[in-house]
Amino acid sequence: MPATRWGDPAHATGLPDGVRDLVGLVFPIKDTPAREDVAVPASRLADELVAGLRELLGEDNVVTDDGVRRLRTRGKSTPDLLRQRAGDLGDAPDVVVRPGGHDDVVAVLAWAQENRVAVVPFGGGTAVTGGLVADPDAAGLVGVVSLDLGRMRGLLALDAVSSTATFEPGLRGPEAEALLAQHGLMLGHFPQSFEYATIGGFAATRSSGQSSAGYGRFDAMVVALRVATPVGEVRLGVSPANASGPDLRELFLGSEGAFGVITEVTVRVRPLPEVKEYEGWRWRSFAEGADAMRQLAQADLLPTVLRLSDENETAINLADPEAIGGEGGADGEGPGCLMVVGYEGTPAAVAAKKAAVTAALTALGGAPQGSGPGAAWAHGRFDAPYLRDSLLDNGVLVETLETVAFWSNRENLYTRVKTALEQALPGAMVLCHVSHVYATGCSLYFTVAAPGGEDPLAAWLPAKAAACEAIVAAGASITHHHAVGTDHKPYLTAEIGEVGAEVLRAVKKAVDPTGILNPGVLIP
Amino acid sequence: MPATRWGDPAHATGLPDGVRDLVGLVFPIKDTPAREDVAVPASRLADELVAGLRELLGEDNVVTDDGVRRLRTRGKSTPDLLRQRAGDLGDAPDVVVRPGGHDDVVAVLAWAQENRVAVVPFGGGTAVTGGLVADPDAAGLVGVVSLDLGRMRGLLALDAVSSTATFEPGLRGPEAEALLAQHGLMLGHFPQSFEYATIGGFAATRSSGQSSAGYGRFDAMVVALRVATPVGEVRLGVSPANASGPDLRELFLGSEGAFGVITEVTVRVRPLPEVKEYEGWRWRSFAEGADAMRQLAQADLLPTVLRLSDENETAINLADPEAIGGEGGADGEGPGCLMVVGYEGTPAAVAAKKAAVTAALTALGGAPQGSGPGAAWAHGRFDAPYLRDSLLDNGVLVETLETVAFWSNRENLYTRVKTALEQALPGAMVLCHVSHVYATGCSLYFTVAAPGGEDPLAAWLPAKAAACEAIVAAGASITHHHAVGTDHKPYLTAEIGEVGAEVLRAVKKAVDPTGILNPGVLIP
Repeated sequence: MPATRWGDPAHATGLPDGVRDLVGLVFPIKDTPAREDVAVPASRLADELVAGLRELLGEDNVVTDDGVRRLRTRGKSTPDLLRQRAGDLGDAPDVVVRPGGHDDVVAVLAWAQENRVAVVPFGGGTAVTGGLVADPDAAGLVGVVSLDLGRMRGLLALDAVSSTATFEPGLRGPEAEALLAQHGLMLGHFPQSFEYATIGGFAATRSSGQSSAGYGRFDAMVVALRVATPVGEVRLGVSPANASGPDLRELFLGSEGAFGVITEVTVRVRPLPEVKEYEGWRWRSFAEGADAMRQLAQADLLPTVLRLSDENETAINLADPEAIGGEGGADGEGPGCLMVVGYEGTPAAVAAKKAAVTAALTALGGAPQGSGPGAAWAHGRFDAPYLRDSLLDNGVLVETLETVAFWSNRENLYTRVKTALEQALPGAMVLCHVSHVYATGCSLYFTVAAPGGEDPLAAWLPAKAAACEAIVAAGASITHHHAVGTDHKPYLTAEIGEVGAEVLRAVKKAVDPTGILNPGVLIP
Repeated sequence: MPATRWGDPAHATGLPDGVRDLVGLVFPIKDTPAREDVAVPASRLADELVAGLRELLGEDNVVTDDGVRRLRTRGKSTPDLLRQRAGDLGDAPDVVVRPGGHDDVVAVLAWAQENRVAVVPFGGGTAVTGGLVADPDAAGLVGVVSLDLGRMRGLLALDAVSSTATFEPGLRGPEAEALLAQHGLMLGHFPQSFEYATIGGFAATRSSGQSSAGYGRFDAMVVALRVATPVGEVRLGVSPANASGPDLRELFLGSEGAFGVITEVTVRVRPLPEVKEYEGWRWRSFAEGADAMRQLAQADLLPTVLRLSDENETAINLADPEAIGGEGGADGEGPGCLMVVGYEGTPAAVAAKKAAVTAALTALGGAPQGSGPGAAWAHGRFDAPYLRDSLLDNGVLVETLETVAFWSNRENLYTRVKTALEQALPGAMVLCHVSHVYATGCSLYFTVAAPGGEDPLAAWLPAKAAACEAIVAAGASITHHHAVGTDHKPYLTAEIGEVGAEVLRAVKKAVDPTGILNPGVLIP
């Protein structure tokens, strides 16, 4: 995909009628053309170093071309896109290498260690928290290799009895699903970045998908890992769960390329669902809807998909608040909030779950809205990043951030983050939804839209900091599924403590003594 | 409980009629009297050191009395009991201290670090893999403190909205459940050691209970931890799940006292079930029953309790094989295997789950046996350790061990371990059950009974080693829920690799630089 935009250009949308003026969100349209033509900084690596890589991987798999390096520069956060649009390609890697398998990765790590070059694993390039911005200078390294895992796209093993599949890390979401679908199986991991993000990235960042209520977070799907580190190979996971000391799988999951390069991921798979039903439910308020979600989760009665938009997001997403009751709706209590409830599985399982969930939601005061809102959500579930591009084109600063807390902290967290964003960005519209639900808590996913002004990046960074500080002050997690990267690193110690940070540093030193792996990312 | 036996002496059972001669298990009765009167080795700690402890914790909470030290010597594995019976109390701690809370634990750790004394956290004393056998000499330490957590028995917080409870570590299973029951809640963790084992021990060893199919492993119940380490406090868990780097909770869960002392554990709690129904199902073979379990788990259709005994264990446990069909039963295909299926929850949830599970098991060839076998299992679910004492009294060597693997490896693992035990212990009877089930695999829990002979310990240790080697050769986990301790430590590196072992050592060094915490346990 282009460096300054999301996804397939053919799929790009203009700004839908009504979005900008729906709630007075009329900003001056600003001309911010894509800057694909800006030159990438020259490679810092000496020719003989690059020649050494070519010997290891072959000519075709070592690329210093500007266009290729541009496309491996940073990720897809709004700051990433704004910097690209402004012509800032300062974080470009010096060379892009394409290993063909685990052994190639091991060879690159040995080369990098010997030559003191940073290695940044690159999957789909969809990082949104600065996870692809290694800092070689701070680590005393001479340059950066982007380790593009795009050639490692195999389904290495399928264990139909155990219901597990072993993938290489470079497979994108749809590619992995297509390989499984040939066997009547699926993974069921559908984050918004699904179309581009990769299996390795899902594991390295503890990704969570839109069907997490039914299929679980990605880390919960993983049963085994193979990781290449500078000090040797790690293979973990000979059983679903055990008491063989600390579960070290959980130490490499979420390690964001800083502890090693994940070269194989074994996950639980499932039969393809025979039935998929998505429907809408209306709640009088965000609090009432969230409490209904809590009660479903605590009764172990979760459907496959469960999401709830707050009043603002409900209004914006539908672009017609009347559709779910509207202001002064049937109950006269405001515009209401849309919940999407999805069921997938066998006809019998879907019918049983739907009956139980419907009874529970009805008893809790929800109003069923039929399949229309569910179908609308399912149709557009991966489209938000395209809309962001159109908004940016039109001078609107738009970005998302997310967090997670225990249920008793939900309202406090919501209010603190929303207030922090509104205060930091005058005129901003702040939307929120509950995107993932657990028995003991839930995530909150915020979308912010505000006038971009002359320097939207300068406007956004203090707002992001204010939101992060509000999350810390609320005693919540700095990220539910976007990972730490460099953007959240300043807030990690508040969450895991000084001893926790020291543990991360100790593990880093043990597995990466020269500090070549994604330096500057994750570890405080 | 007594040092040489399990539990409450008033609850002790004789050897039930029929157990010994049911399948020819007639061994010479050997007189191995309890040896409560053997002297405990003198404390190695100088008086002034002990005086320092008394200043910290008060006279009453620093105990050097022989009887108290004897009861903190080792755990309750058969080798532990045999050593005690033989008068070997060589691993006795030098002093037993009883902290009243987190701050007391911190003070003891500082004292121990300054004076180079090992600290062994002690909960219920039910360890069965040598987790309470610290080796101070190897660590260059002058003695051993048993850190008895029995005074730390509080329910520190109850968050009814989030459905979480925060416990101190010294609470025994029934005590924790009683505190929750006052609020209509429960934890639902029922390992065989339930009556004596503690919350802190459950966390430190990644315990798993008999209702794990419905309520999950203990580590899956934990949402937050407070840990005292020699380098400072660790507080982890501000949300159910997140992407804030590696999940460090999973590094302290299962750390067996080697990374710190767990002083608070926050767990998910649930409403007390209104209905409990346990029933028996008969399967023609262990393989057929296990495959039915697999299919339930992969269909996300697990009841609350799900266990399956192999042919031998079915026969022994019922002491009347005819009860579930017997040899030459209705289908003429052998004695059959008993599955216990339990449902707990609201009447509606139990009815719905039971209907779905019953349909699935029936379709898979199971034969319902009604509530009799279920009630028999529920009645005796915590009694096996008492029976072990009676068998040991009668010259029968009896011990258990367990492992876990993916489903496709189940039969291979079962055959290898069973064969290894039968070859190492001529005349042994080897029983097995599937005790815990996951979508991708299951645990196997073996019980071995054999003639004890003159030196049952010398007979057992090579058999245990053979079983461990068979587990490693099968590519399974060395333990599903008994932990590593010292007994499984020689096999851990095979499972987590050299780099995994190095990671454990690096974390150990970071959080316990002087190596005072449970030295010799867990870490290869």
